[in-house]
Amino acid sequence: MTALDIALAYHRAWTGHDFEAAMQYVADDIVCLAPAGPIEGAEGFREFMEPFSKILLEAALVASYGDESTALLMYDTRTVPVASAPGAELLTVEDGRITHLRIIFDRLPFAEARAADAP
Amino acid sequence: MTALDIALAYHRAWTGHDFEAAMQYVADDIVCLAPAGPIEGAEGFREFMEPFSKILLEAALVASYGDESTALLMYDTRTVPVASAPGAELLTVEDGRITHLRIIFDRLPFAEARAADAP
Repeated sequence: MTALDIALAYHRAWTGHDFEAAMQYVADDIVCLAPAGPIEGAEGFREFMEPFSKILLEAALVASYGDESTALLMYDTRTVPVASAPGAELLTVEDGRITHLRIIFDRLPFAEARAADAP
Repeated sequence: MTALDIALAYHRAWTGHDFEAAMQYVADDIVCLAPAGPIEGAEGFREFMEPFSKILLEAALVASYGDESTALLMYDTRTVPVASAPGAELLTVEDGRITHLRIIFDRLPFAEARAADAP
């Protein structure tokens, strides 16, 4: 399986709300570069991404490319707090597992939704 | 020139602070899907992107892929208000010009920098 195959399998699993299956593609020592900063290790990564998969209503892959070691995805999501929350991910794969995942998304509408919800 | 060639030429031009050159690769009827919503036409697009190129201190391409009609880029930038402002762009190219550009970046640190700057 190429890096793109692994990236797409991971993407299908988490957008399908099966985070247990998604974690099968995640290396124990994954380094995730998220908008708020780096997250190290599979457990921390799961704490970051699984809550997002739980507020996910809909997802659609917009573009996906890759080669032997790396894949680049762009996707749309619709979530409970934010109607349109697209993301982009660069994934590095080694031995069938994602070792680096760089994710870009716009945190602003999530911050605004939180502020609107605050008492 | 492939879509990726055009995308990279555009990227080199705007990150090189030559927005005049960058606009050579932009279709008059470009549709840009930005975090705040769609922008239609080359003039509006320039009003959106050129100010960003002016606050740009440094840029580095992180990944780039493409095929005949489409390219997908991820890059790092360092800007005057925000030290780390990565972006991802999906570009559709027709007849050597970018007709659609979807850009994802995190607006939150820019909003925070503006708020900190406000009197």
